[in-house]
Amino acid sequence: MPKFGIVIHGGAGTILKEKMSDDQEAQIRATLRLSLQTGFTVLKSGGSSLDAVQRAVNVMEDSPLFNAGKGAVFTHDGDNEQDATIMNGPTGQAGAVGGVRRIKNPIDLARTVMEKSPHVLLISAGAEQFAEQHGFEMMDPTYFHTELRRKQLAAALDKERASGGNDPGSITLSEDGKHGTVGAVALDQEGRLAAATSSGGMTNKKFGRVGDSAQPGAGTWADKVCAVSTTGHGEYFMRGVVAYDLAVNMQYRGMPLAEAAETTVREKLDATGGTGGLIAIDREGNFVLPFNTKGMYRGHLMPGEDPHVAIWEE
Amino acid sequence: MPKFGIVIHGGAGTILKEKMSDDQEAQIRATLRLSLQTGFTVLKSGGSSLDAVQRAVNVMEDSPLFNAGKGAVFTHDGDNEQDATIMNGPTGQAGAVGGVRRIKNPIDLARTVMEKSPHVLLISAGAEQFAEQHGFEMMDPTYFHTELRRKQLAAALDKERASGGNDPGSITLSEDGKHGTVGAVALDQEGRLAAATSSGGMTNKKFGRVGDSAQPGAGTWADKVCAVSTTGHGEYFMRGVVAYDLAVNMQYRGMPLAEAAETTVREKLDATGGTGGLIAIDREGNFVLPFNTKGMYRGHLMPGEDPHVAIWEE
Repeated sequence: MPKFGIVIHGGAGTILKEKMSDDQEAQIRATLRLSLQTGFTVLKSGGSSLDAVQRAVNVMEDSPLFNAGKGAVFTHDGDNEQDATIMNGPTGQAGAVGGVRRIKNPIDLARTVMEKSPHVLLISAGAEQFAEQHGFEMMDPTYFHTELRRKQLAAALDKERASGGNDPGSITLSEDGKHGTVGAVALDQEGRLAAATSSGGMTNKKFGRVGDSAQPGAGTWADKVCAVSTTGHGEYFMRGVVAYDLAVNMQYRGMPLAEAAETTVREKLDATGGTGGLIAIDREGNFVLPFNTKGMYRGHLMPGEDPHVAIWEE
Repeated sequence: MPKFGIVIHGGAGTILKEKMSDDQEAQIRATLRLSLQTGFTVLKSGGSSLDAVQRAVNVMEDSPLFNAGKGAVFTHDGDNEQDATIMNGPTGQAGAVGGVRRIKNPIDLARTVMEKSPHVLLISAGAEQFAEQHGFEMMDPTYFHTELRRKQLAAALDKERASGGNDPGSITLSEDGKHGTVGAVALDQEGRLAAATSSGGMTNKKFGRVGDSAQPGAGTWADKVCAVSTTGHGEYFMRGVVAYDLAVNMQYRGMPLAEAAETTVREKLDATGGTGGLIAIDREGNFVLPFNTKGMYRGHLMPGEDPHVAIWEE
């Protein structure tokens, strides 16, 4: 049987079983399964890992349940500013966008940056101008306004006021919205690896904060050996260059995937107080999904298996 | 004699001796010397490497001769959009800004992001709002308008028109403006390493392009072992995670600084067609300044030495 497959995450954080209804949980699991099956169908029919990770991420972007695309969290000013990165292992090409507000599927725009521009990262209004000229539909900002995220912003603002956060230059982070991000990594039948990550960032974020999801090497990585997508408190992943660190643990320290991932989580997250998780797959089809938070929405689908999804430790 | 010192660069690229007047060359060398002496004075009096790299970069930002601060190149729309990153080795903290238009010294704002916010990267209008609330003077955009950069934009636009670049979504890069960036790395008397990079990006850039100078790991790195600042065609440095790659060549592959730098330039730039250079210093005070372009503005100053500056191969 050829080695191929897909691994996804839908965010890590303080996800508590007692705070989630059975119905919510069922919806989340169903969307993760749909994401896996959508990506896997591409791989099974001989498509590229690049198409597979993009389509898998699209499913989570289009769901209000995850902090990316439709379900992106609100900024302090009541906007939704999104980051995304895609990377193609065989070529080492990467595309990313930061702080975009009117793009339904930021991962599609990241791919267009990679394929139709000489650049890696485009941001804000400039990125949207590029999108418009490449035929992207500009969404009305209300498309991204969901009740759940509105409540999370209100709660974050209440907490900020309660803690005396009146200094206009101050920044109060919300625990709730800190860890949402979606991502996928895949190996296709031709042995090509790819990774994709898309994120609404942090609830109540201010001042044009951009996170690791817009930075190849930090939140996303793919080369000829492995593909990685991360989720968590982005600043720790940026300072630790986490996704690339896992890759060089394999290539420079000679570690197999599982040891490389464990080492990166220990040295770059546990050691610094960083919280979150990651998914990674290597060219042999080995994969890992470690996290150091209460939970991480995640799943994998390999040939001859049923889609496997999980939220908490198993 | 205690080991300490500073190394700087003022950009790498197709710098041709025959295209530079004696007067221009003398001005550039004098500014590089002033930058070195300014940073070195901090170190000699027992100050931190963090202060030293910031002050050294300030000197180049305030000069119209380098593509950062005052001398930043023009975007396609006639603006100046700047990126900068600073990183503190002992703590692993980093601060960065991308696409800022009204900040005289972007490296100062990067430091304020590092020290006064929980974030790593702030962009565009949001970053300027943060700057304003932290007491930064908002410059009139005309402060950054210099005759040299205006001519470079006009030449780039002419070239774009001549090559039929009428497709509004297309991007034509200018060779001239591709490689300007300034940076500094330093080791202080307490053995602390720091790195800083500031850049106006590329002449004629469009669509909110942000380069490696806004990304810790790509254009800037500092830890307890080495400090790195890069200059060149930023997209190659982003895809190669060049600054961090040098650091892990030392830490994970056990290479001494010179071999680590040589390996990174060979594997991450020469192998991919990337052009540029970098400066790096380690905790023993060893330093390197490799580049694969015609020239790189650069210099170093160590205890008991005169400032040493250079432009071409020696």
